[in-house]
Amino acid sequence: MKKYVIKGDICYSESSDRLCTFKNSYAVCEDGICAGVYQKLPECYETFPCYDYTGQLVIPGLTDLHVHAPQYPFRGLGMDLELIDWLNTHTFVEEAKYADISYAEKAYDIFTQDLRNSATARACIFGTIHTEATLLLMEKLDQAGIIAYAGKVSMDRNSPENLCEKSARQAARDAEHWIQECSRFQNVRPILTPRFIPVCSDELMEELSTLQKKYHLPVQSHLSENLGEIQWVKELCPDTDFYGAAYDKYGLFGNDCPCIMAHCVHSGEDEIRLMKEQNVFIAHCPESNTNLSSGIAPVRTYLDYGMHVGLGSDIAAGSSISIFKAMAMAVQCSKLRWRLSDQSLAPLRIEEVFYLATKGGGAFFGNAGSFEKGFAFDAVVLDDAALRHPQELSIKERLERFIYLADDRCILAKFVNGVRLFERNDA
Amino acid sequence: MKKYVIKGDICYSESSDRLCTFKNSYAVCEDGICAGVYQKLPECYETFPCYDYTGQLVIPGLTDLHVHAPQYPFRGLGMDLELIDWLNTHTFVEEAKYADISYAEKAYDIFTQDLRNSATARACIFGTIHTEATLLLMEKLDQAGIIAYAGKVSMDRNSPENLCEKSARQAARDAEHWIQECSRFQNVRPILTPRFIPVCSDELMEELSTLQKKYHLPVQSHLSENLGEIQWVKELCPDTDFYGAAYDKYGLFGNDCPCIMAHCVHSGEDEIRLMKEQNVFIAHCPESNTNLSSGIAPVRTYLDYGMHVGLGSDIAAGSSISIFKAMAMAVQCSKLRWRLSDQSLAPLRIEEVFYLATKGGGAFFGNAGSFEKGFAFDAVVLDDAALRHPQELSIKERLERFIYLADDRCILAKFVNGVRLFERNDA
Repeated sequence: MKKYVIKGDICYSESSDRLCTFKNSYAVCEDGICAGVYQKLPECYETFPCYDYTGQLVIPGLTDLHVHAPQYPFRGLGMDLELIDWLNTHTFVEEAKYADISYAEKAYDIFTQDLRNSATARACIFGTIHTEATLLLMEKLDQAGIIAYAGKVSMDRNSPENLCEKSARQAARDAEHWIQECSRFQNVRPILTPRFIPVCSDELMEELSTLQKKYHLPVQSHLSENLGEIQWVKELCPDTDFYGAAYDKYGLFGNDCPCIMAHCVHSGEDEIRLMKEQNVFIAHCPESNTNLSSGIAPVRTYLDYGMHVGLGSDIAAGSSISIFKAMAMAVQCSKLRWRLSDQSLAPLRIEEVFYLATKGGGAFFGNAGSFEKGFAFDAVVLDDAALRHPQELSIKERLERFIYLADDRCILAKFVNGVRLFERNDA
Repeated sequence: MKKYVIKGDICYSESSDRLCTFKNSYAVCEDGICAGVYQKLPECYETFPCYDYTGQLVIPGLTDLHVHAPQYPFRGLGMDLELIDWLNTHTFVEEAKYADISYAEKAYDIFTQDLRNSATARACIFGTIHTEATLLLMEKLDQAGIIAYAGKVSMDRNSPENLCEKSARQAARDAEHWIQECSRFQNVRPILTPRFIPVCSDELMEELSTLQKKYHLPVQSHLSENLGEIQWVKELCPDTDFYGAAYDKYGLFGNDCPCIMAHCVHSGEDEIRLMKEQNVFIAHCPESNTNLSSGIAPVRTYLDYGMHVGLGSDIAAGSSISIFKAMAMAVQCSKLRWRLSDQSLAPLRIEEVFYLATKGGGAFFGNAGSFEKGFAFDAVVLDDAALRHPQELSIKERLERFIYLADDRCILAKFVNGVRLFERNDA
């Protein structure tokens, strides 16, 4: 059933500085697409069945632009290192386990269930180098009704033996086989995933470039996260002027190749200009950048320049899959950046981080992350009762409280692409 | 019943760099005091009844060294301002409501129940200027079994009319009446609470000094939180060399007057030296200092100097009452401070923030916050099942996960001063 109405207190972003709130109103879903929000329901929709959430807050589903599914088992663990040491000590050890499909089965089951129970409707997800495990992850996501891009990771140098693809040619053959297998999924699509420049040879980048052109796939990777990493890329790619140019050289940096780059903490002017010109999406991951002592990305600059920005949980350098937490930390980190580093960049406001978590990141999926007419109908119903208070609160105040305090208990119901994934009281 | 044994995986701090873990062991409670932790239970305790939490993690109860109970209703709201504007715009407006005892009843009910359901065993709490409402808060805490110091706030200048005591003399008479009424409580004791220097006249400080000497009460207040505040204190107290000296002048800054100062974000060398010499406790409130853009306190310095430090939630500049969250943010903020400000101060480690949240802050209550022999028996039992994972984890890893990810659902049981406050499965 994809024709219905949701009644409640509705809240969504039109732009980073325009938050729309509608008390006691109606959001209309027609064939999975939003037909608008109305304070009085138009006659033509009166025959639609109504989910009545009077008094509850209804927001668009959230988008997680950057999350590593195989790292979910060690979320909240081992964050006493910076990026490269953290990868070698914790991450690669865990990811190697996904050669064993029975471990992948157990771990991806937990990840997928927790993601389904969260407020995230759409996600861009890293798997591992393992084709079988990555297809298993995609199958689970597909069944759970999450809309996702998911990627088999490509990496063929500077990696432990059991996580290093044997040759660029073989890596490309495996990636192509994986791409072809993905046609069976309905909600989940493949995305090319060179892990990051330090572990991808020139030959591998060349091969991925060929696949990108052949299959018109989007790309996700990492960019300018950590100072040591940036220095390493400089040494590995002496012919490029900046880190992002090492992706751009192979046509894997925006324009005809839709592209998400995670982090962009230390991007310089040239890199920022190229990202803007070529419509590269930035996945801002404030908790991760804090936990690995990477720094704080200048999100205010990216917003001022009108660039595409969304939020990422970046499990497991981020400990929490909650995009509410990512919103809160985006505000918090922007304040510390203002206080400690650069008072020319004003801290982010609630409206702005809510935009990033909804319409900002959702834009990678087309029209998603808003209740404007023509957008995919993703909705999350939030129950204020879990956060008791003695006073009256406005819709915006209730949203703000959820950003700081919500956990999955607050999520009463979730709709993705028009499909009702769950309702807590059904159980 | 105050003689019993708890069986489980036990974890506590001996010092900031020594974490003790005991798999499948016994913590013994005798008349509310810990009689030690044993891998094999000594014969003399074999007749004690046993709470069997085999496989669960058992840690000491946590201490919140700084929390404003009346601000709990607006936690997670209105954090787009710095300290002084935030006080005037949000805080004072809310606190004025506590003149109405029926509002206080509703609000303090929610606060006390949420505190009881948290991992916090002991707390140092600000009320408002209102005697009746503050006594109501203390009664509720007393009945809930929380061990607390709670204070009627004193303030008589630079405050809105409905929150400004009429004269120093009257403020002192009201405070003395309140102190005398407190004798009826068992678990909750009074603490003198001059709000902070900008709102306390010299005459009021003089009066509070007299009360301190007469009743031998401890003191709690705020210190060097925000740059604008510090400048204001300089203007208000031209005869003092630094902010802390304005408390010390009245004998309200350690030595014979046990004292907690919240924040100490921008304390200079002289202030730090005086705090160390006079055993002033520092309540480190990382989330609050982030949300109000105050900055990040140099906790590494305080630990290196062997000073007394604990953690505070600082509701409502901090959004969460959870001291697990305060631990995580203490680590996170120390990393950002290291990255953005000062690489001479190493980030805090898990062992260190766990110490701050337990034995470090607990020391304000005497022997509290550890399972060493002779310590008050406060214990929290944590259920790993709420945070599913596919791999084996050590006790320290499980603790670390809880620091980043625990919410009240993880708390299976809580014991304070030997009394079992609740067990989740009782319901």
